[in-house]
Formats: sequence, C-alpha cells, structure tokens
Amino acid sequence: MIIPLHPRLAAAELKELEEIAGEFGVRIQPIHGNERSIYAILGDETSQDLINRIEGLPYIERVDRIQSPYKLMSRESKLSHHRVMVGKKSLPGDFCVIAGHCTIDPNNKQLFLETAMAVKEAGADMLRGGVWKPRTSPHSFQGDARSLDILLEARAQTGLPVNTEVMDFDQLKLCVEAKVDSLQIGARSALNYRLLQQVGEMTKDTQTKVLLKRSMHMGPVSEFILAAEYIVAQGNPNVMLCPRGTVPTIEGFRNSPDESITLLLKERTWAPVVVDPSHSVGKAVYVPFACLAAAAYGADGIVVETHCQPKRGMGDDPKQAITPDVLAQLIRDTRQIHASAARYAPKAAAT
Amino acid sequence: MIIPLHPRLAAAELKELEEIAGEFGVRIQPIHGNERSIYAILGDETSQDLINRIEGLPYIERVDRIQSPYKLMSRESKLSHHRVMVGKKSLPGDFCVIAGHCTIDPNNKQLFLETAMAVKEAGADMLRGGVWKPRTSPHSFQGDARSLDILLEARAQTGLPVNTEVMDFDQLKLCVEAKVDSLQIGARSALNYRLLQQVGEMTKDTQTKVLLKRSMHMGPVSEFILAAEYIVAQGNPNVMLCPRGTVPTIEGFRNSPDESITLLLKERTWAPVVVDPSHSVGKAVYVPFACLAAAAYGADGIVVETHCQPKRGMGDDPKQAITPDVLAQLIRDTRQIHASAARYAPKAAAT
Amino acid sequence: MIIPLHPRLAAAELKELEEIAGEFGVRIQPIHGNERSIYAILGDETSQDLINRIEGLPYIERVDRIQSPYKLMSRESKLSHHRVMVGKKSLPGDFCVIAGHCTIDPNNKQLFLETAMAVKEAGADMLRGGVWKPRTSPHSFQGDARSLDILLEARAQTGLPVNTEVMDFDQLKLCVEAKVDSLQIGARSALNYRLLQQVGEMTKDTQTKVLLKRSMHMGPVSEFILAAEYIVAQGNPNVMLCPRGTVPTIEGFRNSPDESITLLLKERTWAPVVVDPSHSVGKAVYVPFACLAAAAYGADGIVVETHCQPKRGMGDDPKQAITPDVLAQLIRDTRQIHASAARYAPKAAAT
Amino acid sequence: MIIPLHPRLAAAELKELEEIAGEFGVRIQPIHGNERSIYAILGDETSQDLINRIEGLPYIERVDRIQSPYKLMSRESKLSHHRVMVGKKSLPGDFCVIAGHCTIDPNNKQLFLETAMAVKEAGADMLRGGVWKPRTSPHSFQGDARSLDILLEARAQTGLPVNTEVMDFDQLKLCVEAKVDSLQIGARSALNYRLLQQVGEMTKDTQTKVLLKRSMHMGPVSEFILAAEYIVAQGNPNVMLCPRGTVPTIEGFRNSPDESITLLLKERTWAPVVVDPSHSVGKAVYVPFACLAAAAYGADGIVVETHCQPKRGMGDDPKQAITPDVLAQLIRDTRQIHASAARYAPKAAAT
Repeated sequence: MIIPLHPRLAAAELKELEEIAGEFGVRIQPIHGNERSIYAILGDETSQDLINRIEGLPYIERVDRIQSPYKLMSRESKLSHHRVMVGKKSLPGDFCVIAGHCTIDPNNKQLFLETAMAVKEAGADMLRGGVWKPRTSPHSFQGDARSLDILLEARAQTGLPVNTEVMDFDQLKLCVEAKVDSLQIGARSALNYRLLQQVGEMTKDTQTKVLLKRSMHMGPVSEFILAAEYIVAQGNPNVMLCPRGTVPTIEGFRNSPDESITLLLKERTWAPVVVDPSHSVGKAVYVPFACLAAAAYGADGIVVETHCQPKRGMGDDPKQAITPDVLAQLIRDTRQIHASAARYAPKAAAT
Repeated sequence: MIIPLHPRLAAAELKELEEIAGEFGVRIQPIHGNERSIYAILGDETSQDLINRIEGLPYIERVDRIQSPYKLMSRESKLSHHRVMVGKKSLPGDFCVIAGHCTIDPNNKQLFLETAMAVKEAGADMLRGGVWKPRTSPHSFQGDARSLDILLEARAQTGLPVNTEVMDFDQLKLCVEAKVDSLQIGARSALNYRLLQQVGEMTKDTQTKVLLKRSMHMGPVSEFILAAEYIVAQGNPNVMLCPRGTVPTIEGFRNSPDESITLLLKERTWAPVVVDPSHSVGKAVYVPFACLAAAAYGADGIVVETHCQPKRGMGDDPKQAITPDVLAQLIRDTRQIHASAARYAPKAAAT
Repeated sequence: MIIPLHPRLAAAELKELEEIAGEFGVRIQPIHGNERSIYAILGDETSQDLINRIEGLPYIERVDRIQSPYKLMSRESKLSHHRVMVGKKSLPGDFCVIAGHCTIDPNNKQLFLETAMAVKEAGADMLRGGVWKPRTSPHSFQGDARSLDILLEARAQTGLPVNTEVMDFDQLKLCVEAKVDSLQIGARSALNYRLLQQVGEMTKDTQTKVLLKRSMHMGPVSEFILAAEYIVAQGNPNVMLCPRGTVPTIEGFRNSPDESITLLLKERTWAPVVVDPSHSVGKAVYVPFACLAAAAYGADGIVVETHCQPKRGMGDDPKQAITPDVLAQLIRDTRQIHASAARYAPKAAAT
Repeated sequence: MIIPLHPRLAAAELKELEEIAGEFGVRIQPIHGNERSIYAILGDETSQDLINRIEGLPYIERVDRIQSPYKLMSRESKLSHHRVMVGKKSLPGDFCVIAGHCTIDPNNKQLFLETAMAVKEAGADMLRGGVWKPRTSPHSFQGDARSLDILLEARAQTGLPVNTEVMDFDQLKLCVEAKVDSLQIGARSALNYRLLQQVGEMTKDTQTKVLLKRSMHMGPVSEFILAAEYIVAQGNPNVMLCPRGTVPTIEGFRNSPDESITLLLKERTWAPVVVDPSHSVGKAVYVPFACLAAAAYGADGIVVETHCQPKRGMGDDPKQAITPDVLAQLIRDTRQIHASAARYAPKAAAT
C-alpha cells in the first residue's frame, strides 16, 4: 500500500510509479478516497528492492507492506505441519526442557559430567554445554575446543542429545562432524547472515536441530523470523526460535525479558519457540519465575543454565545457573502451566 | 560513591568537595586504589540537590548512589508489614482480581450492571469501571461524570468494592466524597507529582486504596517507587503498584509487557503489585496469557478489562476486554500459578 | 486501511464491518489483490473509537491509518501561516534563544538579576527562570512562589519577555494573572491532558505563548503533536514544540538527545520547534555541541539553562547550566548554522 | 565497588569474597559508612569473570566497575596520539568525507565510475562502494564479487582511496589481497567477534584502515569501544568508529540518530569518529541535516551515500543517496561547523 506525500499523485508521478512496478512484475491500483488517494501494489510486494525504489521517489511518503516477507516460515507455508523432535518431545505440542552449563570448564570434566547426570535425573530432554563463548571483551575467556569432547562424553554417559553454540564456520564444521544434536546460534550471530546460510548448507543432509537465539536488540518480529528463513531456505526446517531478552531497559535485569514475543511468533510462524530465561533475567533467584512466565506465554520449552555447583562455574554460571533440584521442581511446574496456557490457545489458533 | 574524572583529586578539588559535603551534613572519605581513587559519601546521600552539586564539578565524572532514595516505600521501612485489603483478600499473600469495563457507557447503565454481576459471579474481588478517560487526542470521547453514579449503583447491587481513574483535583474530590473504594492513577498521571500529592492529602483520613499505574515510559524502577512515595508520604500507605506495559518496542502488542518488573519491585519495596495485562498486550486473545505470566512473576493480583459484550463496548473494550467466562477460568488458573510461584519466593525473600 | 487476518473477509464479516462504519459515517471499500484483499475506509478515519471498534473484531489484524489525527496542527490546516513572536523574532524563519536559570533561588534575588542582565547582553531573546519544579522525589526542593516576583522584577529590569513552568491550575492562574509572557509545560505534564486543556482555556484571551516540552518517553511523533492540539483547540495557537531528550538509552547522557525529531515535526506541522539541549545531554560541557546540533537539524531556536555562577545554582544548574560568555559565542554560532541548514530546507519544504 | 545486599557483610561472607579476589590477584577493602558498608576492589577489576563470580554470590547486590574494561582504546593508553589518515586528512584534527554508492551495480560499471568522478570533484577524501550487502531477507540481492573490480577501477581513475564492507573471512581475504584502503565492518558484524579478530589479524601487516559501524542495538558505549579493541588488540590501530543510528524508536526515520554519542566516544577513547548520517535518518531529504549535526557534535568526518542518479541505484541508494552537487555544498558547510564545534572542544578535552 503506497501512501503519497500529497493527497493525490500527478499523472506523471503515477506513470513513473507504474514503470518501476513493471520492472518488478507487479501492478499499481489507485484507490480514491474522499480526501486523499492511496495506491495498492497488486502482486508480490515482498521485494525489499522494489520497496526501496518506490520509497525513494520524492512524492511518496511511505510504503506499508501487507504481505509477510518470509515465505517458508509463514504459518501458511507448506512446512506448517512440521514438527521438531527434542529427545522424545515433539514440538509444538509437547513441552521440552534443555539444561546444563553456560560454559564447560575444559579443565574439569567431572564437574560437567556430574551436572549432566543430575539434569537427566531431574527430567531434562536435552543437555546444553558451551564450548566456545562470544565475549564482549577480547580479554575474557573465549572457550576451548577440548570441551567438545567433554560434551560428547556426557552425551554417551547420559543418552541425552546435546546442544552447543557455534560462532564461525570452523566450529560449525567440527560440530556437524561430531554429530552434535543441536546447534545454538547466539544472539549476536542471529544477524550474521553468512553464518546462518552456512548453518543451513552444512545441516541440509544431517537435519541437525538449530536453536536460534533472538538478537538482543529490539527489531521487529519479522527480522527474527527472517533470520530463521535464512537457515530453512537451505533445506533444514529443524529450527527452534529462542527469545532470550533484549537490551536492558531498566536496571535490575541483565536484559529485558521478552518471553511475551512467543504469542506474536506463534501467530506468524509454525516454528516452535523455546525460551531462554537465564539470559533474560540474568540472576539465579529470578530465573524460576521467568521459566514459569515462558510457559504462561505458551512457549514450547525452555533452555535453562543449570549447574551442580554454580559457585565453581565459569562464564555466566556463577550468576545465573540454577541447581538441578530447582530444575526438577521447575519441570513439574512449567509442564502444568504449559497445559493451562493451552486452554487459551484455541482462540489464538483460530485467528 | 564519587568517581573523579582523573585518577585522583587534587588537594584543592578535595577541599571544595568537602565544603559542599559540609553544607549537606555529610562527610567525604577518600579510598585510594592501585590505579585510581574514589571518594565515599558518609551520611545521607539521598539528596538529589547534593548529587547535582557534586556532579556539576568539572573534575567529577559521576556519583553512584548506593542508598535508595525512597524512605517509606523501602523494604526496610517501618511500613514493611503493612497489608492492603482488596475485598477479603490481604496483599501481599493472597491473589486478587479486579475486573470490569475500561469505560462505562453513560447512556447504557444496564450493560455495566450486567458486566458487574457477571464478574462477581466469576469470582472477582473488586469491580473496575472508567468514568473519565485520558485520551491522546482532544477529539476523542473524554468520559462523563454521570458514569460515576452507574459505578456506585453497581457497587450497591454486587457488594463489590469499586475502582475508577481520577485525573485531576475535581474528579478526585468527587470520588473521595462518593467513598469510591480504590482510586486509579493512570500511566500518564504517574508523573503528575502535584496530583500524587493531592491524592495523598485527600485520602489521608479515608485511607482509600490507590492503584498506581506505572508510567508507560521506561524509566528506572526507583522512579515508579518514588511516585508511590509521594502518596504514602502524605499519610496513606494503601498503595498498589500496577505495571501496565511500557512504550512499545515491537509491532504487535499495544505496549511492551513489563510484568517481570514485579520481581524488582518486590525486592525493593513492601507494596503489593497488581499487574494490568489488558493494556500491556492490548488484544483480547493475548490477555489470558499475560494474566498467567503476571502470576508467574509473583504478582499479588491482576486488573483485567472484562465486558459482557465487548463488541458493544467503548474506549478500549472492543479491542482488549475479555468476557466473564474467560475471566472465571483465568481466576482458577492464575491462583494455581500464584501458588506455584510462591514456592520460589523464599529464595528471593531470603536475599 | 483495514488488514484482515485471513486473505479475504467472509460476507458476514464484511457486513458487520460495514455496519460499524455506518455508525461513524464512513464507508468501506474492498480492494482485491492477487493474494489477499484489503479494505479502505472512505471518509474521516481519525476517530480512535472507530479504530478500536474495528481492531476489536476477531477477523481483523490491524488498521493502518493514513490521515493524521490532528486537524489544527497539520501543515494543511488554516493555521499553517501562523507565526509565533519571541521578543522581536518571528518563528519559524528567525532563530530565537531563550536562556536563564533552571531554578530561581527564592533567597537570592541578586543572583538571578545578575544572570538576567548577562543573558540579555549575550543576545538572548527571552529570559527563563524556574519558580516551581517537578521533582522525582517528594523529599527534594519543590520550588517557591516568591520566585515569581523575582522573575517579574528581572523582566522589568531587562525588558526581556519571560518564560516559566507551570504544573497545576493554581500556578497557571497566578502566571496568567501576572502576564507571564510564555508558559512552559514540562516533559511530564505533556501527558497531563487536563492541564493542557486548562492552559488552552486560560490563555485563549491573552494568547500567552506556550513552550511545550516533549514527553521524555519515546512515543510516536503524533502523540507530541496531539498534546499541542489540546492547547490550540481551545483557541491559542502560540505553541512552540520543545524536544528535550527522551529516556536515556546509553549511560553518559542525562537523556537521549532527540533534536533530530525537528525534521519530522516540521514535515507534519506548522508550529515552530525550539530545542532544549540542556536537559537532553545534561552536562554543561556537552551543552554547546547539542545547541549546534539543534540548529543543524533546522530548529527555530534553543532554550538553554544559563547561570552567571553555576556552582552556586539550584536544581539542575550546577550540572548543566552554561555561563553567559559561552552563551554569547553560541548565539553567533547557532545563527550561522541555522542559516546553513536553511539551504537544505527548500527540498524538505517541497515535500 | 561491591555493593552488598544487606548493610554489612558477615565475617564468613567477607572471607569467601576475599578468597575469590585472591584467585584473580586483587584485594578487597571494606569501607564502613554510617548506614551501610561497601567493599572496594583494589587491583585490576576489569575481568568479567571476576565480576561474574562476585555478582553470583547470594549476598551481593551488584558490582559497579570504575575502571574501563578497554586498555588499548582508552584515552590513557599509549596509542592516544595515534592518527588515522584518510587521503590527505589526518584524524582527529581534520574533517574527512567518504562518499559513494551504497551498492555497486555489477552490471553497470559506468554508473559507478561516473559517481566516483563526481564525488572526487565535489571534494570527497575517500570513495565508498558496496560489493557485498547484508540483507534482512535471504530473498534479497546479496551482492556480487565482480563489483570489487569496478571499485578498484574507480580507484585507479580517481586516485581516491576506497572503502568497502566485508562480512566474512573470504571477502576479507579478497579485499586485503586487492589492497582495498579501508574495510567497512557493518552494524550487524560489529558483534561478530570472530570476524573482528580475523580483521585485526589479516590487517596487522597492511595496517588497512577499518571503518567500524556501531551495532544498531542500543548497548552501552563500552560495548562499541570493546568491538574496536578486538581489532586493535591484533596490532592494527587504524580504526575509525562509525555511529550509524540505532534501532528506530519513533516512526519517521530509518533508525534513531546517534551522532551525539560522538561526545561520549571522544571522552573515553582516542579513536576518530566518522558518522554515517545516511543510515541514521534513511531518507535523502533528511541526510544533509544529519551531516551538519554530525559536525556539530564534533565528529571527525562523515560517510555519506552519494549517487549521480539515485533513481537508478540499487540497495538503499534510491531512498537515501544524495547527489554530488548536494555533497559539494555539504562539504563546505560541515567543514565550517567542524571548525565552530572545535571552539567548545578544549573544555571537553580539559576534562
């Protein structure tokens, strides 16, 4: 829908607009109202290049797009019945819990194995453990490839599928070769389009799951969905969308909790939503409440930093990891809330 | 804690700083670190005027305050054991539900009475109904004093206490005289300090409850608590803090849901927190999820726009009011989640 | 423009939509595209109540408004040639400078008179001085009515028109009776619609100038313009729009500078824009740069806290007031930049 | 500075804190105030891992860091006298202008060569041209390596140094081998720490200039400076910091203008600041004003999308590119404002 700057386009302006439309294979239909006219785009209006060309005209105020710019991620796409399996849980529908260390200490294998067994017993469906870490400062610990072996050993001992973050092509290759079950794409990498494409290409055959964090900045919902579209467009639909808090707007939390975006994601896309409450609130005593809220908003699961001895942890674990006994209680509570929230979902689904 | 611009203050600079401190009855204590010195304020550092004077000095980078600037609202104040009664519910502790129209139609008394009876049957503890409305545009409906009589008649018929918004001194006076049970201070008025003072003064004797909405902008938590301090300082501690969403950061919701701030409010103050999910998400199909999330974050209650025939409603009711049958189910679900969340509270309370 | 949730409305849905439209005297015109239909509102679509009714329908996704909701403030209104006089400066066109204390010390008349003479000599067009102050904390200094006499005496001595902030009806009445030349409505009061109406009513006959600060929260441009519409609708078009920074998004500034909004305001309304750089950046050493930037963005003037002895100032003066000699230099520099910026304006004006 | 949750740490708590401090080679010094105690960290407190460990303790409220976490980028570092040369301009001190296409059309070499000659004649110091482009949608044009040859040919014809964006290792390698003069790191890549390291490593010997855009999210200033630290730490100090607008907070601009951050960057680091007004405001008619504002805030230069025929441009050029004649006028005006702003700089520098 094209909004002109003035009440009506002059004939020459409309002609120029129609010529641009023609280059992109769409047509322009004027709609004359009482006080002003607007101009509809008939045909595929999802091209950003088309929009830029039209919005660049000095007599156009703006273009309001009506179609969603994502084709595969849309609820109307042929993928809308796709399900992602996390262990034995089928998403959406079931509620899954992914738990484990923020960061694996490469020099303390036992500590991670101990956590791995504990989260399995607590009822988690997947084990998380950070091998490499994005750090704001170049002077902070950046991770260690040796931790990948520890993660794989924990998988062997517990039978749980494993999830870890990759930040570049080399890490991605290592993890796909090691048959890691789920690749985490961090909040900063969610805007690294080249990496997203590589993830899609590399996992086309393996259909490895991808846990895609939402960028910590506050862009529109479509930006997040389009990041997933980059991966799915390469042939791997096993993507889980992971809100994890946006840039902080008040002091007190690490980030601004954004689990509520689950409602908007589910309205627009078929992909499961797995919320990360740990990075959202950023403090162990707050995390359980954020887990309950994620379930309340209809999330399909949570990914929670859990550590058997948080004080001895690395990275964010001393601040935000909960303990396995709290996790066990949370699994019971979130599953109950997930069932309560489902009561209200038909109304949203009907929309 | 005073942070100088350069590693250490010169003798003359320290002297000037000490003179200013003296005017405010506090002392300065230097702390010499390896690379730089900082300067502690010993004594009451809550005066904004003191802070402004010091931060105005060209050799000072900033002052980090450690003490909270609110005295009465603090968890450590003598009011920390105060309870606010909403009907038979005692807050904090119990979970209360306030429900009813956004706006009472002054020409359709029956419609409001019908809603009033329905929310009572659904289990609500207090009835809400808007008499006057703040509107962004001067050309929108601004409310009608006749609706106050309708509200009072509904109270008489249902036995429920009633809540309504006041925006200026005349409305405040009318409502206090009519013995309205709870005065709502809207998000825009939460920064109208003169009105806050008047509310405190006028209700000092009646101890009328005050439901204070959080301003829709994203200021620090202390700003919200200080708004309540304005009222309490006049002698009325019956204040309920009401997060209602901040300015929207993504398209899709009316505002940015902020029920998570409940955790921060409860850490710092004793006052009950009653969340408004209706204005937060702004769409009836989303509202139930936001209600569950409020309970998940440990809120002491919710205030939900409810209407027996939303399509015939005024103001925001057509968009965001839920129906009494949905409310009835929500009351059951939120009370259960409130109990679940309480399991995790001792850990927060212990802090 | 009405966007349905599904590609096309069913006949019964369209019928219901048309009935609502009929209640508001507008018509609905369907526009059928290739993949989906949208529905135009023919007639006056500025009623928020109409929009709420339509958006409340379960089969409607949203309504995109095309008409601006302000009628008098619009560039197309009959007021578009109105000019506001600040001293001898005619806005828009000329560039005006308003300067003086944040807060007048009621116990130190000489200090303010000294500043008043100094800003006059520096070349200011209007004198500012705060009599009453909105303060976040009830425990801070709130102002003193005696300062109004000091302000009036300064006017008598300098011949400069004067500007001061009013926060409630009593202060407003006092100032209008004292024939204060310009009433400042603070950032918090910009959402106090009752006060805005009272300001309009009280100044209908006097045509007193009103310097309306932008609310510190980050709402849409139309919200700011509609606040002015409240005043103008009562019969006083002498409004100046004053951006003053929004809630801070990074540490370092007091607020987030928003002088750039000048461009958007000038595109949509005829009212002059006078920027407040003092509250925007909040630190005396930053203020000159923010003054230059305001002129660069095409502002019609600046209002700058200026003090002959900032260290002895009250309120914000110790932190953010500049001295009269800096002001004198700034007046020369901003006027030159204002002339440079005008070179690029014809292009914007042509739009 | 460590702030405990309660007024004073218990002996066992202090002991645990001291043990953690010992692991990181720092000491803890208690400071006992009247009402509460705080605890200073003596020694290097810049380790994020140390902060995480302490903040993870249940009896600690927070740690306020006083030292800046960047060592090389700090104004106090040994690099503080480093100058970056853009053509014949030495930054900071001189004012440089970088201009050219957002995107080079790989099928229209002449168009770019025409622009290149025109910006040279207008007085630009460096030529920009996009070869590869980060796009929100995988379905948009992503760039073409053939455009690199066009860029190099334009360099040969004009004698201007050239700048282009790289988004991954392969593009980086190609550009360094082609001796591109300046590598642009886009707003999304500014958080791609692996790429930042690779840029530093690959340019250690060539000392290629790096134009580092600020991430579009609104994180703290230190986050931006630490991104530059990643590059400089590898041995290449030729970094220019480039604010380009953050996520939009009001409708009307493409992003939220952030040229004001120049003041904060210059206070904390020695690196030159070159503002991108094109992406900030995102519309050709607004761009000149944003250029003037960048100079007003003391920027050392601007990078402006310029096109000889914007309507025939690709990517953002139709919307936001200015023409060479506007550029020529802007170069004169911004240099004059840069000189005016310098008048106020000594005060900031003295701080």
